[in-house]
Amino acid sequence: MEIERKYLIKELPDLTKYRFVAIEQGYLNTKPVVRIRKKDNQYILTYKGSGLLAHEEIEAQLTADAYYHLLEKIDGHPITKKRYLIPLDPYTIELDVFEGHMDGLIMAEVEFPTIEEAEAFIPPEWFGEEVTGDRRYHNSEMIFGNPLK
Amino acid sequence: MEIERKYLIKELPDLTKYRFVAIEQGYLNTKPVVRIRKKDNQYILTYKGSGLLAHEEIEAQLTADAYYHLLEKIDGHPITKKRYLIPLDPYTIELDVFEGHMDGLIMAEVEFPTIEEAEAFIPPEWFGEEVTGDRRYHNSEMIFGNPLK
Repeated sequence: MEIERKYLIKELPDLTKYRFVAIEQGYLNTKPVVRIRKKDNQYILTYKGSGLLAHEEIEAQLTADAYYHLLEKIDGHPITKKRYLIPLDPYTIELDVFEGHMDGLIMAEVEFPTIEEAEAFIPPEWFGEEVTGDRRYHNSEMIFGNPLK
Repeated sequence: MEIERKYLIKELPDLTKYRFVAIEQGYLNTKPVVRIRKKDNQYILTYKGSGLLAHEEIEAQLTADAYYHLLEKIDGHPITKKRYLIPLDPYTIELDVFEGHMDGLIMAEVEFPTIEEAEAFIPPEWFGEEVTGDRRYHNSEMIFGNPLK
């Protein structure tokens, strides 16, 4: 179960001191989500049950061969992005800097242990508009083209 | 974790008193297994990690729409079979009567709680050759044609 809030970024902080992981992912199905993801040298199959703020999530390991086999079966475009992990005590911001056909989009996600904490969260100054629940900012929408253009 | 032994059936018992479920399934990937299955009116995504006698298995619900969307992406043929559940105290025999391109194959699987019980199992008289670990009898091999012909 994942409880998270999502924001667009208006002003990027200095990222040079943070490490990032290179992510490439694609969707075999979007409802429910059946996703493949390459994260540095890890290959992962993810299933996400329905629901917007809270949803069931299952992960399983793939081999590189399996990943590239399944990559040929994805719907629409793959999504590529650099993900930075930025501490914001006691949470961690996942900052996604998109590339490829979504180049220009920068989005932050924060995950919470409870719905109460999610509701009480005050975003830092450099966060922009909240887009939690806005389907246009779901990766599963972006695969069919850039929904922001 | 599943521990099971598999047998071919030489002599079919009277099945009229047992109920069956109609199963259709296909493989998006075979190593590791990423399988979709229609079981009566249930649609299930299954992941199976590697290993022959014992392997990790994860199941997740699909919608009918998701199932038919993913069915277009499977490798090779779908597999169709009728599955009978036959009690064999304290176990349950899963008897698969194959249809379609595997018509003629009848196979029984018995699942055990421990490897010790699996090793101590004495099959009933009507079971034929044991094929546990014989890759030709893996559904993931049958999708590319009938390996017994």
